[in-house]
Order: sequence, then structure tokens, then C-alpha cells
Amino acid sequence: MTVDAQDALQALRGFGIELPSWAFGNSGTRFKVFPQPGVPRDPFEKISDAAQVNRHTGAAPRVSLHIPWDLVDDFGKLVAHAADEGVAIGAINSNTFQDEDYKLGSLTHADPRVRAKAVAHHVQCIDVMRATGSRDLKIWLPDGLNYAGQDDIRDRQERLADSLREIYAALDAEHRILLEYKIFEPHFYTMDIPDWGTSLLHCLDLGPQATVVLDTGHHAPSTNIEFIVAQLLRVGRLGAFDFNSRYYADDDLIVGSADPFQLFRIMNEIVRADALRPDSGVNFMLDQCHNIEEKIPAQIRSVLNVQEATAKALLVDRAALRAAQQAGDVLAAHAVLMDAYNTDVRAPLADLRESQGLPRDPAAAYRASGYAAKIAAERVGGAQAGWGA
Amino acid sequence: MTVDAQDALQALRGFGIELPSWAFGNSGTRFKVFPQPGVPRDPFEKISDAAQVNRHTGAAPRVSLHIPWDLVDDFGKLVAHAADEGVAIGAINSNTFQDEDYKLGSLTHADPRVRAKAVAHHVQCIDVMRATGSRDLKIWLPDGLNYAGQDDIRDRQERLADSLREIYAALDAEHRILLEYKIFEPHFYTMDIPDWGTSLLHCLDLGPQATVVLDTGHHAPSTNIEFIVAQLLRVGRLGAFDFNSRYYADDDLIVGSADPFQLFRIMNEIVRADALRPDSGVNFMLDQCHNIEEKIPAQIRSVLNVQEATAKALLVDRAALRAAQQAGDVLAAHAVLMDAYNTDVRAPLADLRESQGLPRDPAAAYRASGYAAKIAAERVGGAQAGWGA
Amino acid sequence: MTVDAQDALQALRGFGIELPSWAFGNSGTRFKVFPQPGVPRDPFEKISDAAQVNRHTGAAPRVSLHIPWDLVDDFGKLVAHAADEGVAIGAINSNTFQDEDYKLGSLTHADPRVRAKAVAHHVQCIDVMRATGSRDLKIWLPDGLNYAGQDDIRDRQERLADSLREIYAALDAEHRILLEYKIFEPHFYTMDIPDWGTSLLHCLDLGPQATVVLDTGHHAPSTNIEFIVAQLLRVGRLGAFDFNSRYYADDDLIVGSADPFQLFRIMNEIVRADALRPDSGVNFMLDQCHNIEEKIPAQIRSVLNVQEATAKALLVDRAALRAAQQAGDVLAAHAVLMDAYNTDVRAPLADLRESQGLPRDPAAAYRASGYAAKIAAERVGGAQAGWGA
Amino acid sequence: MTVDAQDALQALRGFGIELPSWAFGNSGTRFKVFPQPGVPRDPFEKISDAAQVNRHTGAAPRVSLHIPWDLVDDFGKLVAHAADEGVAIGAINSNTFQDEDYKLGSLTHADPRVRAKAVAHHVQCIDVMRATGSRDLKIWLPDGLNYAGQDDIRDRQERLADSLREIYAALDAEHRILLEYKIFEPHFYTMDIPDWGTSLLHCLDLGPQATVVLDTGHHAPSTNIEFIVAQLLRVGRLGAFDFNSRYYADDDLIVGSADPFQLFRIMNEIVRADALRPDSGVNFMLDQCHNIEEKIPAQIRSVLNVQEATAKALLVDRAALRAAQQAGDVLAAHAVLMDAYNTDVRAPLADLRESQGLPRDPAAAYRASGYAAKIAAERVGGAQAGWGA
Repeated sequence: MTVDAQDALQALRGFGIELPSWAFGNSGTRFKVFPQPGVPRDPFEKISDAAQVNRHTGAAPRVSLHIPWDLVDDFGKLVAHAADEGVAIGAINSNTFQDEDYKLGSLTHADPRVRAKAVAHHVQCIDVMRATGSRDLKIWLPDGLNYAGQDDIRDRQERLADSLREIYAALDAEHRILLEYKIFEPHFYTMDIPDWGTSLLHCLDLGPQATVVLDTGHHAPSTNIEFIVAQLLRVGRLGAFDFNSRYYADDDLIVGSADPFQLFRIMNEIVRADALRPDSGVNFMLDQCHNIEEKIPAQIRSVLNVQEATAKALLVDRAALRAAQQAGDVLAAHAVLMDAYNTDVRAPLADLRESQGLPRDPAAAYRASGYAAKIAAERVGGAQAGWGA
Repeated sequence: MTVDAQDALQALRGFGIELPSWAFGNSGTRFKVFPQPGVPRDPFEKISDAAQVNRHTGAAPRVSLHIPWDLVDDFGKLVAHAADEGVAIGAINSNTFQDEDYKLGSLTHADPRVRAKAVAHHVQCIDVMRATGSRDLKIWLPDGLNYAGQDDIRDRQERLADSLREIYAALDAEHRILLEYKIFEPHFYTMDIPDWGTSLLHCLDLGPQATVVLDTGHHAPSTNIEFIVAQLLRVGRLGAFDFNSRYYADDDLIVGSADPFQLFRIMNEIVRADALRPDSGVNFMLDQCHNIEEKIPAQIRSVLNVQEATAKALLVDRAALRAAQQAGDVLAAHAVLMDAYNTDVRAPLADLRESQGLPRDPAAAYRASGYAAKIAAERVGGAQAGWGA
Repeated sequence: MTVDAQDALQALRGFGIELPSWAFGNSGTRFKVFPQPGVPRDPFEKISDAAQVNRHTGAAPRVSLHIPWDLVDDFGKLVAHAADEGVAIGAINSNTFQDEDYKLGSLTHADPRVRAKAVAHHVQCIDVMRATGSRDLKIWLPDGLNYAGQDDIRDRQERLADSLREIYAALDAEHRILLEYKIFEPHFYTMDIPDWGTSLLHCLDLGPQATVVLDTGHHAPSTNIEFIVAQLLRVGRLGAFDFNSRYYADDDLIVGSADPFQLFRIMNEIVRADALRPDSGVNFMLDQCHNIEEKIPAQIRSVLNVQEATAKALLVDRAALRAAQQAGDVLAAHAVLMDAYNTDVRAPLADLRESQGLPRDPAAAYRASGYAAKIAAERVGGAQAGWGA
Repeated sequence: MTVDAQDALQALRGFGIELPSWAFGNSGTRFKVFPQPGVPRDPFEKISDAAQVNRHTGAAPRVSLHIPWDLVDDFGKLVAHAADEGVAIGAINSNTFQDEDYKLGSLTHADPRVRAKAVAHHVQCIDVMRATGSRDLKIWLPDGLNYAGQDDIRDRQERLADSLREIYAALDAEHRILLEYKIFEPHFYTMDIPDWGTSLLHCLDLGPQATVVLDTGHHAPSTNIEFIVAQLLRVGRLGAFDFNSRYYADDDLIVGSADPFQLFRIMNEIVRADALRPDSGVNFMLDQCHNIEEKIPAQIRSVLNVQEATAKALLVDRAALRAAQQAGDVLAAHAVLMDAYNTDVRAPLADLRESQGLPRDPAAAYRASGYAAKIAAERVGGAQAGWGA
């Protein structure tokens, strides 16, 4: 390895991962949501929990909100609370999967009344962006079909295009749409945005403020995700990641827990394209569910997993890699990549953290802080946050 | 086609499909449960709805119960109610996925106290079997792991074997265990009974009263399900089906709606093994979710889909098939099977229904009956049944 | 069913399926190619065999060629031979997977010399198009990587774009490029055109004469193919199908043999978009391997399977479907589609055939013709055609 | 990490990986076999090449043979040659996929003559075992079907059981059958031994000398392989591994190149069950194709990848793991496993190698040896070995 680790890892200083407010609330499967002690009861408490992750890792400076789950009377107060906690508000996520009207679709619904309602919800989200200083409107469209023939696939695309244009028209100049795709769930015959191709087509139609979100759990089995990353970077439309892990479907496990080599390969494409820079336009977000494990420690683990994969990608000897690739030396080129992957980056990352005044071991520091016991004791009464609120 | 359809379809006269009580309650995804008007509020109303399906199809004579969802004070009354409605109680399903104690497992849990509690729940289910005259205890084990290392895979197998032996010991002589497998969900690293091999190993260990349940939605992508059917029939351990459809995961759509040819191939193995006979020991059950469509009509459609696939399987010209297979004539053998599949069996099935005093078109008959409007009007107040109750 | 079958099926009169010359040569897996008696030894014999399919079905008017497998000294003679046999030359397929130079890529190779050679091969194919009157240059790009790091994913995209632009520039005004995608094989880490999104991006970059080929066996498990069909039709870039069947990978089985309902859903999108018309720009081609079954009868079966699926799609009651969709009646809309699918169209298709002076049963007519025995007897000596020649 | 690496890695001293003779011959896909310079032309040269891997790694003491590819007139000479090269003969692999008679099956064929021929081939393989001192007869059964209805699934199981019993009866007391399973290829509707359940059922029927081979590339997408490893170890029937890597199908890439974390999880189950011991009965074999990369270096890389994964598994702090598992601390238990996985074991492995008089860097040592140039120069003329010979 001719790459100097200390040098290479400096690129991580400005690298922040955005946390989802809903990761701190209760979550589960269709079979059961298991509540946990100390779970937040409102957006303020969610932000406080997210801030714990940033406090110990120094790498989680923003929190995504989900509307209506995170609606508050005074977003100015929420922004101030976040600032007090040392974090900022990130992307605003719309929600069109929990209103009775959206049973058969929202932006794609056959009924113009329902589509108008869904568009209006997104305009409301843009208002929240203005109130919170958020740049990104993230649209994960839950629309789709369960049965062949249930609705017309192509008509739904046209309706979607129309609805998106209305939303796009409501954006301010500094705003972006992040348009997500997902192969299945909550619908099981087809989704209306099932793949990156569909998402990109709509973004191209909308204009330069529309970009694609890649959720690492939203693909068919055996899809090569880093290829999609490279392709979207190439056409300048990779707006964001929703990081998580999967073995089977959209499992929403801790990022890097199921296939750490894949995470490394993804971050390798990011580093190769110099898209780690904060001004690259790529928002690195988590979107996970901690159904059975403690939520704050799980988010800390996730942030560290992304950091470690990125550190390894920074250690790739690019000159040696390129030389082997140009020479057509398959094994040598592969070996250059694997050398970086096989390196243990935990100590240099701890050094980097220490140099920033952060704990060497964020997980241990969190455990030692007593925060978990404190919130378990204090957050008594009220309704724990979940996907319903 | 040298097979006489009228003759062949006589085998359907005794062929009944068991309905799940929970298909009539509300269901959904982890994102949302959309309630429907007229949904039952208790097991009595569920049975009444299930009986509607039998009334119009003549092919759904039993209803599976789910414990504790279908617990009643007096099972004698429930049995009598079912009899009044023209149906009987079928398999008793246990539930170890909704108690806080089972967050990390039930029959496989590391803590002996939790395992004992889970075993006791199954013994309670056996009591319900005695009270209802049910033969089958269906165990779908929700136990599994989300993260590598979370628990010891092999220890969990040993604990599972021990727990199952205790349950088996509590069976009466006429009882059976139906042991289900599932590749994933609600856990996403591994399930404790992920495949038919594991289920069968435990059944072989337990004894002749233990058999495998094959849920058509519980396999890895591209698994050949009819092969498993043939293999389990061969070793005499196919206890039951949970029929439904899938495109992606355990989608729980209407059976036959996603891949009707696969359903035909499955029923073809059944007919080939002469396992359609009521005394074959195979319980043909539905296990589905009607998240967005009307529940009673969806169950009617499901029963008809199974009937139609079975009718086509009965039309296969077995002599011609065998001759072509013996001759190694690939295309001819395939063509014999496809000839049966491509036949439209709806008219002869309507004839058969008519000959039994049943409506030719069960879906139309149900719609004409006014039952949907009646229950929507009457079932006001109370809590609609769902997976929580 | 309010649709009149006789009327509806008239649309099939002009509907022709293009056959691949290589389907009549020997094929197999990496483990073994099993030769068959009577297999063609040159392009002339391949065309004669393909013409047999057209003779008995009336629905296979063109034959695709594969270069260099089908190179002849005098394409004028080959065109005349085809005309004598009642068929025409269809798409010209390039081949960059069998030259030693292409081991690590062709249009994407790191070495400009190899890329130039591959471009020149395509220019040669365009010459063949001029010599044969072919409109379509089909490019299935075998390029890809086996190991992470082996080459730079993004560089390869840029090289691909450059190479394609050179080829595009060589087209005549009436020519088209058909650009195929494939998820894997012959490379197993990533292909350079793995999905429809990548193919479409390159087509959009090239211009209006570039369109996408959808091979039904080239997707990840559980991909909804008819969605892609609808999307490509919507953006006017569905150039062609390569029809075949799969259970697992690119199995290249007889179209309609593995999932006839999927084939119907695909053809339903075609009919819905009025793309069955000969001038719709969609070339309906087969691309299959008959490894263990007789080749000519297998192609006949395939043509009939596509015809039957299309006939069912033509029977869909569009007005009833639209009404149910608009009303949000999930089960009713699905039922309209299924009514068409469940109809046995073999007799009306036989009637249609008869009305065109064709045999009612093309498979039986071929068997009765004695052609198989004739070619087995005559084609002695010489080298049977296969993928190597 | 409280585990001492130097201590833990001592368990690797006796750990040997068996190499396949055919990995040194040419291989490819159905599209093309790319020959390489210096490829062996006979079994003697294959063994010499395999011995190179052992020379530099000290961890590849045996070579599997494939019959008839590796048939020689005098197996005594081949054994002596192997001994001279410092290796021994390992498992004998049968081949029933390249004879014309086996087009529609071998041990499962409908024709008793073909079955008898296939059984006789296996008896011949047992003779080779006697002549070479081999313990293991590995049977990968290529039999299967391409089309539904082509043959009777269940009849084929019965014929398979009969054929296997005949082969089993021919074994000596110290012999074993290793029975492999594979989900698909070379057949695409169903294989006759598609999954571990089927393989195990036949082994249980045969007796204690029959065990299952797990090829890591032979499963459906998203199958949890380490679960199967644990289960087969539990019932005492894991006879061997065929190691390789896959992203999609049976890609046969270098083991550990596609999902190194999965390889670690597999070896973790081996270590946990104390099955690394030479007398555990588990034969750790490679089965790979080096289509585009150099073969000897690829095998060296493969052996090192298995060693590294195993070293990491040996570093797992079993006491800490068990404590966290017993406590139900999901994140802590997962973290114990990941701590071992994230450790860079390359330096301690180099130390261990050095202590055994082996090169610290086997790949570099091989490159420095000049062997590649030597065989490229010497092996001129004759036919390079491939899958055909």
C-alpha cells in the first residue's frame, strides 16, 4: 500500500452522514412493532437523540424530517433546538402512504382530486423546507399495483409526470427534488417508480433540480448497485443515498452489516468520482429500522460503518489500480482494490477522531454517557413516536 | 385431448379448500393497514364471512383459527356457530410473534423461561384443538436473527428440537403438527426454519404426526416449488399448503394471480400422486392478505383459482404424457401438459357447480346476495379485527 | 367477454415474428453441446429451416443473421434464396464475444486498437445490412467484468459511448441500432450494459435511430418486464424484443414455456399501446436455444405461443377494463384481464390460419411433411452449424 | 480483541484446501473458451501446476481428479508424480454430462440401459479411487429437465435412489460418497438434486458413508449458506465444500472475491463446530473457473482468501460472543463477530507462513519463480486441457 493513511483519511473531515428522524422512533414489521424504553415522543426528542450520534462521531451533522410525522407548530423552535444540539435540519420527506385516500395511489391516482391532494402535500413540504432551511425534498413514492390489470401502467406514468411537474414548479431556486425508486413494497405487482431508469427519466423531464435517490435496499436480487452509482454520477443525477443493508428485500438493517464489501465498492465509486466533497451534490443519508436493537447505538454503528468503508475507499492506490487496469492484468487490478478493503482502518479512524476532539470509541463513549438511562427514566408518559406519528 | 372433462372433474366434488379466519380481518404492510367497511369484529363474524365463500363455491368447508386472535370464552358456541353456517373449524394456528417476550425468539429463545412460555402457548392451542375438533396444529415459527452473530444458529436448532418435542408429546393420537418454513420475514439475516429441509428434519425427528406445511410465498426467488411438493409427497410428509401468490417476497396476494401456470404445475404433482383425495393427508389452505381489495370476493376468486388449476391438472392425459416421457420426446411431453393448461375449464366447472345446486358464477352470486352492504351497515361500533386481535 | 374473437384476431394477420438463424444450429451449455441430426451446415440451410416455420405458421416472415456466423461470399444469393423460400432477411447481429482480442472487452476495451477493431466489425455488419436490405443492426454487447476493480466502470461507459457514436455515424438514414442489455453472462461482476436504463441512456445520446432491445431473459429475478415494455413504448424507444423463457437466468427456453402469463402481460402492453401494427417500429424476434429438443418444431411452438398470448391480449375488453380501473375496483379490473387470459384461443387461431390457407395445426403439418427425415438424410458430411460458426 | 492471534492461528497449520485439476485447464462460458498460454495438456501437467500452489502456500496438499478428463493408463505413475510434486490425489469426480446418452439424464434417465451405463461409470470411478488411494467419490449430478412435463419428477427421484444404492454398494469401507446439489444449470426447469434437502434425503437413505457437498455457487439468490453449513454439521452430513464465488448464478469466480463476509460467516460456523480439524470429515475443496485471469495465481489467491477468512473466524472471541448472545445484546454480539472480521490478518498469516519455511507473499514468490514463463515456453504442441478432455 503506497497510500499514506493519515493523508488519505483527511478527506473524511468534511464528510457527514444525514440521519433520519424516524430511525429513533419505534419501527417493526407488519407482524409487530416492539417498543423500546426511552423512545422519543416528539420531533424535538428525536433531534436530541440524533444529536447524540453526532456528538460522539462528529460525522452526523444533519437530521432528515418526515412530514407529517415531524410536523410541529413552530419550525423556528425546532431549528433552534437542532442548532442548540449541534445539528441542522436536512431533507424533508413527504408521506403519501398513510392517508385513506392514497390506498390506490397518490401522485399517480386515477382520481384527479387525490392527485391534487398529494401535490398539495408536497407543496406543504416545500413550505417546511423554507421554514427549516432545508434544500432537499425527498419523494419516495409508495404508489403501485398489487394485481395485473388493476390500473393502467402507462397512464400512471403520465399522471406521475404531471404531478411531479406541479411539485417541481413550486420549488425555490436553491431547492432540489430527490426522487427515490423501489422495486417493491408496499405494492407487489409493480411500483410506479420501480427502478433507477424510471426515476431518472422523470428527473430528466423535470429539469436540473431533480435528482435520483439510491436506497441500497430497493433493488432486485443480485443487482450491481455500484454500477448504478457510477452511471448516475456520470450523468450528474445522483442526488442522495439512503443507506441500509439487506439480505432479502428492503430489510432496512444497519448499513454495512450484511455486505460490507458492497458498501466499500459503492464508496469506491464515490471516491473515484471525487463525489465525497460536500459540494458534490450527493447527500449521504441513512434510512434504517432498528426493530430489535437499541436505536442510538445502532445509528452510531451505522455511521462508523460508512466511515470505515469510505476510509478503505480512500486507501485505494489509484495509480496502481489504473496501471493494472490499463495493462489488462485482471488479478493485479482486483488485488489493488482488495488490499485497501482488507486493511483495518479502525485505528487510523480513531486517531482522526481524537485529533478532532472526539472520542476514539464513539459507541463506548455513548454507553458511558448515561444518556440511555436518562431518556428511559425521563420519557415516561406520552406516546412514543413510530411510523404512525 | 382424450380426457373426458366431465368425468375428470368429478374428482373435484370432494375437494375442499380451508380458509384462514384472518383473511377477513384488516391487513396491510408495515407502512399502513387500510381498514375496510364491514370487517368482522370477532371470530363469530369471521366465520360467517368465511361461510359466505363456501355458500357460493361449495368448496371451502373449513376455517382455520389463529390463537390468540380467535380466542373465545366458549369454543363450543363457536363450533356450533360454524356448523350453523355450514362450515367446520380447521387448523389451529399458534402465534409467537406479538408478545414482548418473543422479540428475540420463542421456541428457540436463549432464555428457558421464554421457551417454556412458548411451549405452553402451543399446549393451549392443543386444548383449543380438543375444544373445536381440530386435527392440525399449524406452527409458523417467526423466530430468527437480523444480524450475523446475534445468536448461535446451531444452539437455536437444538433448542427448537427440544421445544418441538415437548409440544409433540402433548398431542393426542389423532392430532398432527404442521411445521411451516419461510426464507425470511420477520427476520432478515436468517430464520430458524428457513427451508423445507429444516422443517422436514425436525418432522423426521419428531415422529409420524409431524408434517411440513408448504406456503407458496416462502421461498427464495426462482425456487421450483412443485419439485418440493413432489419430494414431500414422496416421503409422505406433505401435511398442508398455505396458498397465495407472490412476485417478490411473501406478498400474500390472491393465489393464482401472479403465476397461474406455477399453481397448475403444483396441482399437477398433487393429481399425479393421487393426493387430491380427502384422505391423502394434505390440507389445502389459503393464507393471504387482501390489503386493498374486498376480502370475501377475493377469497371467492382464490378458491376458484385453485379449483381451475386443479381442474386443468385433472385434464392432463396421463397415458399420453407417460408415453412421451418414456420415449424421451421432450416437446411432445411438454405439449401434453400445456394442452391441459391451455384449456378453458370455466364452463365445465360452472356445469359441475350447477349440478351440485351451486351458482354457476359464485362471484356474481355473492354480489347479488347483498351481504356486503348488510355487514357494512350492521357492523358499526366495536373494533375491527386485524392482526393485532 | 364482450369482445368478438373473430374480429379481434384479425389484428394478427399482419403480425410476424422474426426467427434467429442460430436457433437452427447446435447450441448447449458450457458443459456440453448435444448435436442433432439434420442440423444446417451453412446459412442457406438455416434459412431453409426457418422458412419451414413460416410455411406452417404463416407468422415468421423474417430471419435474423449473425455475423460472422452467417457470412457468405454473396449475400445477393442468400437474399434470393430467402425469397425463394418465402422469407426475408431481418436484423443483422454483431458478434464481439469470440475473438481473442475481445477477452476483456470490445467496444469498451481499454485498448483503442481493440475498440477500433470492434467498431470496424459493426461497420462491416452495416455493409451486410446494405447487401441484404436489413433495417436493424442488433448489438448485444458481451463486454463486462468478472472482478471488482478489474477495470473502471465509468471509463468503460465513456468508451462505450464513443464507440457507439462511431457506429451510429456509419448508419444509413433508414437503419436503426437495436441496443440490447443483459444483467449478466458472459461476465459475472458487472456487464457494461446491464439494464434498460443504461441502454436507453446511450440511445438517447445517439439519436432517434437508436432503440432498445428487450430480451425477456436478461433481467434480475422478479423484475416486472411489462413495466419496462410500457415505459420504453412511452418514450418511443422500444425497438425490438428477443423472446425466450427463463426460470433462473438467461435460460433461453421456448418463449411462453416458463411463464405464459408473463408473456400475455407483455403482449397486453403492446396491444394497449397499439404497437402490434407492423409500422410501430417494434421488431418481435425470438432468441432461443433448443439444446435438447428438436429445433424446427421448437420454433413452431414458440411462434404459436407468442400468437396465443397476443390473441388473448387482443381479447381484453378494453372498455370494461378502463371502467373498472377508473372506478378503483381492483378485483373487477384484474378479472377483466384474467377473463381474456383464461380463454382458450387455440380454436379461433386455427380458424384464422385456415382462412389464410394455412394448416390448422402447424406442428402436425410439419411432422407430416417429412422434412425432418429429409434433412437428416441429406445433410451428411460437412460441419454442423453452432455458435462457433 | 482478547484472542491472541498467534495462538489462534496455529489451528491453520493442519488446514489444507483441495484443488481441482480442471481449474488449471481452459474454461469459459457457453459463448467462448479463451485459451491461455502454458495450460496443461494432461493430468501430469495439471498436478504439477496444482503443486505450485501448494509449494508457495503450504495449504493445498491435494488435487481432485475428474473422470474421464483425468484418465491415465497408469494411475500408479500419476500417484508417484503427485508425491514427487509434494501433493496427493484427493476426491474423484464423476462426469455424466458429456456423453450423448446422457442428454436427457444419467442416473435418473427413463431408460434402464442408460442408468446402468451411468452406474458403471461410477463403479469405474471407484476403481480409480482404489488405484489412487482416494477416499471421496464426488457426484455432481447434471440431470434435470428443461420443460415442465418433460419427465416425471417423482419417477426420477426413485430412479436416482436406485442408481445411488447400486453405486453405494460398490464402495469400500473407507470410501465416501459426496453428493452435490445445484439449483440450476445445465438444466433450467428443475434439476434432479436441486437443494441440500434432496441431497441429504438420499444420503440418509444410503447410509453413513454418504454425505453432502455444498458448492457455494449452487443456491437460489439470497439463500443463507452458513445456515445450511450449520445444519449439515449438526446432523453429521457435511462431507465437503466446493468453494467459489458468485454474484448471480454459478459464476465460479475466485472464492472470497464477491462476498468475503459471507465466506467468513461460513468459516465461522466451521470453527464454531470445531470442524476445521483434519479428522472432522469435511473436505475443503475449490471448484472454480479462471476464464479470463491466470490460473495458478488465481488458485493461490483463492487459497489465501479461504485462509484469511478462516483466520478471522479463529479470532472471534467465543466467550464474549456467547455472553452477549445469552444476554440478548444484539449489537454487542454482532460487534464481537465484526471485530474479528474487520481485523487485518495478512501480517500474522505471513508470520505463520514464514515460521513454516514458506514465503511471506505466495503470489509474489510464484511470480518470481519463473514458472509461468517456463510452462508457456515448454508446453507447445499437443492439445490444451479443457472441459472436453
